[in-house]
Amino acid sequence: MEVINYLLGYKNLKIVQNTQMFNFSIDSVLLPNFVTLNKKINKILDIGCGNAPISLILSTKTKAQIVGVEIQKEVFDLAVKSVELNNLSDRIEIINADINEISKQWSTEMFDTIVCNPPFFKLNENSHLNDSEYKQIARHEIKLNLEQLMQIAKKLLKNNGNIAIVHRPDRLIDIITTMKKYGIEPKVIQFVYPKENKDANVLLIEGTKNGLPGLKVKKPLYVHLENGEYTEEVKKYFE
Amino acid sequence: MEVINYLLGYKNLKIVQNTQMFNFSIDSVLLPNFVTLNKKINKILDIGCGNAPISLILSTKTKAQIVGVEIQKEVFDLAVKSVELNNLSDRIEIINADINEISKQWSTEMFDTIVCNPPFFKLNENSHLNDSEYKQIARHEIKLNLEQLMQIAKKLLKNNGNIAIVHRPDRLIDIITTMKKYGIEPKVIQFVYPKENKDANVLLIEGTKNGLPGLKVKKPLYVHLENGEYTEEVKKYFE
Repeated sequence: MEVINYLLGYKNLKIVQNTQMFNFSIDSVLLPNFVTLNKKINKILDIGCGNAPISLILSTKTKAQIVGVEIQKEVFDLAVKSVELNNLSDRIEIINADINEISKQWSTEMFDTIVCNPPFFKLNENSHLNDSEYKQIARHEIKLNLEQLMQIAKKLLKNNGNIAIVHRPDRLIDIITTMKKYGIEPKVIQFVYPKENKDANVLLIEGTKNGLPGLKVKKPLYVHLENGEYTEEVKKYFE
Repeated sequence: MEVINYLLGYKNLKIVQNTQMFNFSIDSVLLPNFVTLNKKINKILDIGCGNAPISLILSTKTKAQIVGVEIQKEVFDLAVKSVELNNLSDRIEIINADINEISKQWSTEMFDTIVCNPPFFKLNENSHLNDSEYKQIARHEIKLNLEQLMQIAKKLLKNNGNIAIVHRPDRLIDIITTMKKYGIEPKVIQFVYPKENKDANVLLIEGTKNGLPGLKVKKPLYVHLENGEYTEEVKKYFE
């Protein structure tokens, strides 16, 4: 069933979701609040944009042009509806394509910044065979793996441009070695903890194409209080 | 001036320090409380042991034999005095040697676990030319760099043995790539924050020789409260 929701606390933003596919998670709110934004950024690429939650939130935080690429036609349709619903068609362009293919046609250094909420799981692990195809492609490295993602970033990013991704902490080593392989220097990391006294369950990491070595580990971000409510910090993201 | 101090809150442990060299820091307390310890661990190597704070604290937490190696004769002398003062000569052996040299003479797979509080700074950065030679060698990668450390770990660790080090977060990428290069899989990370709302300033990381991929990022550790006192968690380390 297709439903229109407000994009969490972003009161002016609506998003079209399909309850049979998947609903966006907190990850999609964390990433646009983590990525480095400034006035020099003119063009942002959102790889695997889904129904466009990240692009929509970014549109409230930057004047840059945003291009979202989504491989799945039905999900792409939701993203287009969401963008139209918010009258953001002049700011956000959604493309229905496989980023591996379309990036070959694009020229190099087209984007200042790339954001991506990629599939988290390797193909051989946790294979949720019961998941719908939508979920499988979104969650597993079927159509896009880390290697491909960083190779694309290396091509499409301007020199000193940033790629910011949200992922799982247990893949950190993979992510860092793959970034380094493609000349992307990890510069900022933030770990997200479900609540105090728990291990981190979300990783936010930003790397810079041809950046100098030197990493900053930002203060931890807690999502929930002991009583289950969102923390003040996360609530701020929703206002 | 040579002085005898109690080893912070470890009420039964005394340590000999020389105020003209350097006093041990909180790093030396964090590392022995971070490294994985269990009853199967029989032999631990403390590389660059200084005046032996890490070895001394480890002796309260494990029955393993501990070998500390210290290159600087005057610092080695302090370590020996500290071990004798605590009647731990049967548990802790201190060797005055360059670990790069002595490890060549040792056979492979001699140790279950290695701990190290290595020099933090690259040779070209922050060169504190005003520092004493003691401090320069302890702080800068003059006698031991990450590459050498992981090469030594690869040789001396048993299969599936761990190396745990304390370092600076801005070197994380270097550390991870060097570990991987020598077949040591990073398995556990903990970031230490001076207080809430600050970036991490200390990194604890443990890797396993020939370990399987998969990383755990432990809950953050805060050292100080807003009022400057130690947090309850750090106080526990001193009891």
